Order: sequence, then structure tokens, then C-alpha cells
Amino acid sequence: MVSTEERIMEATYRVLVDDSYSELSIRRIADEFDGSQSLIYYHYDDKEDLLAGFLTYLLDGFEQELETADTDDPLERLLALVDLVVPQRETPDLLSFHQALGEIRMQTPYHDRYQDQFAAFDARLRSELETTIQRGLDDGIFVDVDASDAAERLQLLLSGVLCHYVPMCDWDGIERGQTIIEAEIESWRPD
Amino acid sequence: MVSTEERIMEATYRVLVDDSYSELSIRRIADEFDGSQSLIYYHYDDKEDLLAGFLTYLLDGFEQELETADTDDPLERLLALVDLVVPQRETPDLLSFHQALGEIRMQTPYHDRYQDQFAAFDARLRSELETTIQRGLDDGIFVDVDASDAAERLQLLLSGVLCHYVPMCDWDGIERGQTIIEAEIESWRPD
Repeated sequence: MVSTEERIMEATYRVLVDDSYSELSIRRIADEFDGSQSLIYYHYDDKEDLLAGFLTYLLDGFEQELETADTDDPLERLLALVDLVVPQRETPDLLSFHQALGEIRMQTPYHDRYQDQFAAFDARLRSELETTIQRGLDDGIFVDVDASDAAERLQLLLSGVLCHYVPMCDWDGIERGQTIIEAEIESWRPD
Repeated sequence: MVSTEERIMEATYRVLVDDSYSELSIRRIADEFDGSQSLIYYHYDDKEDLLAGFLTYLLDGFEQELETADTDDPLERLLALVDLVVPQRETPDLLSFHQALGEIRMQTPYHDRYQDQFAAFDARLRSELETTIQRGLDDGIFVDVDASDAAERLQLLLSGVLCHYVPMCDWDGIERGQTIIEAEIESWRPD
């Protein structure tokens, strides 16, 4: 049985896919999950509180994806991570969702709670990239690369794709960006 | 003598440094440039029209910076471009300005006119990067790199720094990002 909180989180996701962050309101989410506004206010103080909760919910989901990933091979795992973070043409909803998420990220200077959540998400992705690259180095799958430096470079490239091409709905750019990131990873393999 | 349009543009810049995009209003700009709202409305239809004009004004400024750059050496010119795009600690206003600019960029899915301006800016930066890298290859200053691919990679890294670290006010991250970009450029030089 799905909890009320989870239904509110799912409704928030759908509203962010359909609308922008600035159109998001408690009323709009209540409409979407077919519940009352007072039920939402029972769980969350206001829109900021709800969105901070939503970012935690996303982070938990990301953590679960990482734990249940079906490969331990460092190369495959890195490529799967890239697939997970970059929106794919076959899932156009994810583009709209990432657009809304980009908007919320740009609100971090004005909302400490969003800032904390994005910082936690960024740190989690960075550590996953770095430990996977380090494992690849230990196993001899990768050579001639510094794990910490390479993880930061990958994260900047991923971030670049999300901020540069996603708001433009530029699918060709998104795909070129993904190819650039994959080529970077491939370049660490021994000749 | 500075024109009214230019005074409005300068006031818009200062408002974006001090406030967020969402707080920007014609009234706020009128206060800042010490003029009347009706004078602004004489030149611009509404906030969207004014901001589209502001983005054109920025693009013109960027074009002028490129034309008056005091070096033709491809390596120095690329490093100067990176300095121009990445905010520096000694100019903290630029951080606030880039934060606001990031917010406006994330509004592009909902405003075609912003989207056109950002697309023009991105294309201008890309072409400058690519022709400079190509000139470096022709002169033998750079080797073993595809100019178009390398220009896109640099642009994604620059975009990553602006979208990842700027909203977090993470100066250390901004500086590490700049070092990563500079190392990428240095890696194209012959041994």
C-alpha cells in the first residue's frame, strides 16, 4: 500500500513534468493526487518544505538505483551512471523533469534547504564516480587517470549537458554530449 | 552621453546582481536608474521584452570583448576566454550576475525570445572556441585534437562550472573547474 507521502511525492513529480517550478503550488499538487490541500499541509509546512522533501525523495531513489545496479564491472557501471543521469529520447518526460529540476537548482542561492539537498546529491554522484573509477584503476581496466580529477571532470560534463542542452530541448546536443562523455571514459582504457 | 536604453540596461544589470530574476520588475529597475516606469514602458513592452533586449545587450558586449581582445596567440586567447566566462574571486558581483543569468537560462523552455538569445550566445562562444582551436592546430601550437569536438567539450565544461558551482557560491569548486579546463587546453600542446 502506497503511503500518502509517497502519493504526494509522485504527484509532485508529475506536476514538475507537466508544468514549470514557478507554476508549482500546493493546490496544483492536491489536484494531481486527487487529495485535499489540507492533507498536504498536514505533512508539509509550505511549498519550500514540500520541495525539500521531494529532493530527499529523489536522493533516496538515486541511492536505491545505485544499490540495485546489476553490474559491478567499472566500465559498464560508469556508462550505466551516464545513462541514468542524461535524459534519453525514449523517455521525453525525463527532459521536462530535468528542466524543472534545473530551475529548482538555480533557486539554491535563495533557499538553503534546496542547496543542502543538491549538495548531498552532487556529493553522492561524485563519490560513486570516483570509487568506480578507482576500482577500474585497481583492476587494470583503466590506466593513466587520477580518479578524483576524472570524477570531477565527468560531473562537470554531465552538468554541462543538463544545463546547456536540456533547457533548449536540444536532443541532438544531449546525444553528442553523451558521446563526448563516453569517449572520455573510453580514453582511460589501456590501448 | 549615455542613452536612456543604455541606462536601463545598466540598471537591469545592477538589479540582477543585487536580486534574483524572479524579483526583477519594471518598478525595481525604474527605482535603480532613477527614472520613471513610463519611460521604461516607452522603450520596452514588458519584463520579457526588456530582458530579451538585455540579453542582446550582453551578446553585443561579448562580441566587443572578442573584437578588442589584445592577443591573437591561440593558447593565450583560449585561456583569456575561459577567464572571461568563469567568474573570478576578485569580481564577486559577477557571481551574483551569473546566478541570475542561470535562472533566466532555465526559463528558456517557457520564453522563446530568451531561448533565441541564449542560442545565439552559445553559438558565438562555440564558434570562437572552435576557430581559435583550429588556428592553434594550423600553427602547430596544438596537436592531436578535433577542433569541433574539443570546442564542444570546453563549452560543456564551462557550462558545468557555471551551473554546478555558481548557484552553490562554491568558489573552490569554480577554481578547480577552471584548473580542469586549463589542463584540458594544455593537454593539446605537443610534448
